[in-house]
Amino acid sequence: MNRHVLSVLVENQSGVLSRVSGLFSRRGYNIDSLSVGETEDPKVSRMTIVVSGDDYILEQIKKQLNKLIDVIKIVELDAEKSVFRELAMIKVNTTMETRASIIEIVSIFRANIVDVSNETLTVEMTGDESKIEAFINLMNNYGIAEVVRTGLTAIERGNKHIKNQIKGEEE
Amino acid sequence: MNRHVLSVLVENQSGVLSRVSGLFSRRGYNIDSLSVGETEDPKVSRMTIVVSGDDYILEQIKKQLNKLIDVIKIVELDAEKSVFRELAMIKVNTTMETRASIIEIVSIFRANIVDVSNETLTVEMTGDESKIEAFINLMNNYGIAEVVRTGLTAIERGNKHIKNQIKGEEE
Repeated sequence: MNRHVLSVLVENQSGVLSRVSGLFSRRGYNIDSLSVGETEDPKVSRMTIVVSGDDYILEQIKKQLNKLIDVIKIVELDAEKSVFRELAMIKVNTTMETRASIIEIVSIFRANIVDVSNETLTVEMTGDESKIEAFINLMNNYGIAEVVRTGLTAIERGNKHIKNQIKGEEE
Repeated sequence: MNRHVLSVLVENQSGVLSRVSGLFSRRGYNIDSLSVGETEDPKVSRMTIVVSGDDYILEQIKKQLNKLIDVIKIVELDAEKSVFRELAMIKVNTTMETRASIIEIVSIFRANIVDVSNETLTVEMTGDESKIEAFINLMNNYGIAEVVRTGLTAIERGNKHIKNQIKGEEE
């Protein structure tokens, strides 16, 4: 059960997301996280998909992905050669007594406070998963109201870029 | 053609993403962006879906979403009462001559440099879409190698949280 991070360039068209995610679910492959947004070209979107599972089945899924006409390119990103980041917003319960110590932890994590109410503080932070999980664990001591996370997004280090790799080529 | 931001709590199960995204595509509704990540409860994931389209059709899609057993809660977020954020990583082409001025713009946008090579700089930034687009427009002057964006993620301001709203209730 290895974890894999796939970066997929797709045509920005209705239905592409359900076709791509359907390929995983038909094989019983759970998607741990997925984010999709625009690229520098408005006709093209880029998905970052994190999955855990059998390597052999993933190879078959990648081959099927490559056959979809909406899929322009698919690359598996190597953790050593890529930057992985996630954005999380965390709403924490506060009281007069706890607010100051929460703000202290927020500053240690270089996170930002994006909203304050009488009973809550909402914090925005980016980092790799372990940083975000460490922060969430600390905030559990105060009580978490809600959490929203984007899932990982990833880009290769250095000059390499996804467009220069041939469709179907393995990393 | 109004833009809508939906926050959807779902059971963290194989196939839920393709069932949810399939509901949109079957109605010809394009998803502008989607991000899905874990919540404070490992059995529950939270999706943020941005769509543009006909209000009446969206109402029907929301009703169908509510009927899916994997869907715990769906709320349409009001821009006035929510914090919207996106994470982007942008790889910019650099030369000896341009690097200093790029770094200056990065600092004005309070973005972070996450990787440097001889020919590129990779920048991580969070903000609303207009901030990220302003930055990307400026970087187009230098040449963008690649962009990856998470799509919007969103959380309600103040004490409100998604779990306290009854399934199917409209915002």
